[in-house]
Parts: sequence; structure tokens; C-alpha cells
Amino acid sequence: MIAKTPSTPYYAVIFTSTKQSDSKEYDQMAQLMVEVSSKQKGFLGIESARNHIGITISYWTDLDAIKAWKSNMDHRVAQEKGRKEWYSAYKVRISKVERDYGFNV
Amino acid sequence: MIAKTPSTPYYAVIFTSTKQSDSKEYDQMAQLMVEVSSKQKGFLGIESARNHIGITISYWTDLDAIKAWKSNMDHRVAQEKGRKEWYSAYKVRISKVERDYGFNV
Repeated sequence: MIAKTPSTPYYAVIFTSTKQSDSKEYDQMAQLMVEVSSKQKGFLGIESARNHIGITISYWTDLDAIKAWKSNMDHRVAQEKGRKEWYSAYKVRISKVERDYGFNV
Repeated sequence: MIAKTPSTPYYAVIFTSTKQSDSKEYDQMAQLMVEVSSKQKGFLGIESARNHIGITISYWTDLDAIKAWKSNMDHRVAQEKGRKEWYSAYKVRISKVERDYGFNV
């Protein structure tokens, strides 16, 4: 679903990744991270798609909320497994959304 | 592929969409837009993935480059067809990438 975000400005964490392989454990962890992150203070929404690469964008009110989510214990376990087992490469980009517009949203 | 972007800051245009239906014409236009945008001044890279939703992120040096791409004639034709024929909804978010880091990139 296209995330329902508030008026700008807000923040987007763009996470782009390639995987080593598919696994049920990965899918379960990814689902868990969506659930846990969405309960974090400052969380605004999430969008995700994957085919050749995976792109997950989470939206946040401010940088402090992003920092808190990065250091969340469940998330740290996922990050560690991600580097060791699941991802062949990834990039994280922390960006400030300055303007947005849409069609039928 | 994960885009090879320079040191921050730079800009990201996050385009999230849902489609009305699949079509060969759409796929051809999407491919053409990748080719045309990548020749624009200020273009830095592009990442794209689609399953339930589509996410395309193009990276740019600055806001003027984004503005020029938005008003590019080929792109305007694609935008018009997008609204009339291809997309059921979309959102465009223009954001400034303030910090990035990665693993194996």
C-alpha cells in the first residue's frame, strides 16, 4: 500500500538490498520488523517492494525516531542476521522529504 | 542494482505507485523513461522494484535537475498516460538524502 504520510517535512529511510538467497526465516523476520517498527514512536508508514532488488522505505517524524529504531534490540538482531546470512549488499539512505504530491492518494 | 551514489547530500525522488493493469506499452515506456532520465543533467542513479506496489527512486544532484526532468517532454507524455491509463494511484516524494551507509556497496 502507498503510505499515508502527513504534510511535509518528514523523514524517509530508504533501504535498498540484494539477497544472498530466499528463506522462510527472512520472510518471518521481515514481517516482524514491519510490526515492531510500526509501534515505534514517530513511525509514519512503510512501503516495500522486491524483485531483482528489494526496496523498503519507512517514514518517520524526525531523526531521533530513526535513531531509536536503529538501536531497537529486535531490530539490532535482525541487522546482525541480515549482514551475516541474508543480504549480499545493502544501502541505507536517510532523507528529509521536503515536498510531496500524488494522484488518487 | 543498488545505485552508486556520491557522498551526501544529494536528492531522491521516491515514486510509489499502484497500477490499474499490466501492459506491454507501460513496460516499454518505463524502460524508455529510465534511458531518457539517465541522460539528464544531474542524474545520479535509479532503483526500481515492483510486486504489490511499485517503487522507483531516482537520485539527483539538486532540485533544479529534478525540476528539469519533471518538465522534460518525453516525461510529460509518460506522466499524462500514467494518470489516464496506467496508474490507479501514485505518490511522489522529493527528499534530500542527508546521510547514507552500506554493506558491500
